[in-house]
Amino acid sequence: NATAKAELGRATWKLLHTMTLRYPETPTQDERNALASYFRLSARLYPCGECAAEFQMLLKKFPPQVGIYFSTAPPIFTCTQTSSRKSAAGWLCFLHNQVNERLHKPEFDCANLDATYDCGC
Amino acid sequence: NATAKAELGRATWKLLHTMTLRYPETPTQDERNALASYFRLSARLYPCGECAAEFQMLLKKFPPQVGIYFSTAPPIFTCTQTSSRKSAAGWLCFLHNQVNERLHKPEFDCANLDATYDCGC
Ligand SMILES: Cc1cc2nc3c(=O)[nH]c(=O)nc-3n(C[C@H](O)[C@H](O)[C@H](O)COP(=O)(O)OP(=O)(O)OC[C@H]3O[C@@H](n4cnc5c(N)ncnc54)[C@H](O)[C@@H]3O)c2cc1C
Ligand SMILES: Cc1cc2nc3c(=O)[nH]c(=O)nc-3n(C[C@H](O)[C@H](O)[C@H](O)COP(=O)(O)OP(=O)(O)OC[C@H]3O[C@@H](n4cnc5c(N)ncnc54)[C@H](O)[C@@H]3O)c2cc1C
Repeated sequence: NATAKAELGRATWKLLHTMTLRYPETPTQDERNALASYFRLSARLYPCGECAAEFQMLLKKFPPQVGIYFSTAPPIFTCTQTSSRKSAAGWLCFLHNQVNERLHKPEFDCANLDATYDCGC
Repeated sequence: NATAKAELGRATWKLLHTMTLRYPETPTQDERNALASYFRLSARLYPCGECAAEFQMLLKKFPPQVGIYFSTAPPIFTCTQTSSRKSAAGWLCFLHNQVNERLHKPEFDCANLDATYDCGC
């Protein structure tokens, strides 16, 4: 059932993007570990097997802690994904675009993040 | 913005219920720890402050590992919330009903869980 899978995906992306956009501007080490663990556990427990495998592979390639996630050579940006709200949100936007590409969906302009996600709180 | 908060809530409940309904029938200890950690981190990172506080309070009262979560006296059911798909899904349904009650929403009949949540995978 592709509709149910798509609805689950939309719900999940909504939660994840809103979460990174409410993540602290200057998180503590403990908050950084919490976000990284949350993403790893999400990828493990995600209730669509094919998607979970893809999610885990992406986290391996672009880990939530430290890693190069965006590169036009030169320069190469080495980013610490959970080091701030901006980094976390930008990293997740990039990750979602990787999934979009694989599913032949248009790339999302990460400059529009703030305008798209409002948690109402 | 109450609409955005409600939309975020609906998206989150959808993910969480679908997750417990795809959780293993007979999980390993490692899988049980993963689910318990996932819920604790979700409650901590949930991007609506008031809801996150409520979520954390509920997890304290009805922890994901072991605890009494449903009681008509007698009998009192002592359940190990992450010990099986059925326990995990039933526990989360109960938790959601606690939130429903506080928000003056109707109680959901947990017998309808399987019919309501389909991840399409
Ligand atoms: C971790 C994960 C892995 C997945 N893997 C698969 C898979 O392997 N196979 C499969 O069929 N489906 C997969 N899905 C589901 C898939 O990504 C979509 O959610 C689903 O196909 C519905 O797509 P959609 O076009 O409605 O938009 P979605 O991709 O769900 O996006 C929802 C909305 O978010 C916004 N958006 C789009 N791109 C971005 C971005 N980069 N950053 C921020 N916001 C953005 C847009 O407004 C869009 O309408 C996965 C979902 C998740 C969460
Ligand atoms: C952890 C958490 C805490 C929240 N705390 C608050 C808060 O403090 N204040 C606030 O205003 N909002 C809070 N929310 C949002 C709130 O719970 C609702 O999501 C929101 O008000 C939208 O409600 P709804 O009527 O569309 O249905 P929702 O409660 O979002 O439920 C969505 C659908 O799930 C099904 N459902 C209902 N009950 C159950 C159940 N027990 N088990 C399984 N399925 C069920 C129904 O089909 C329902 O339509 C919280 C959300 C979460 C995830």
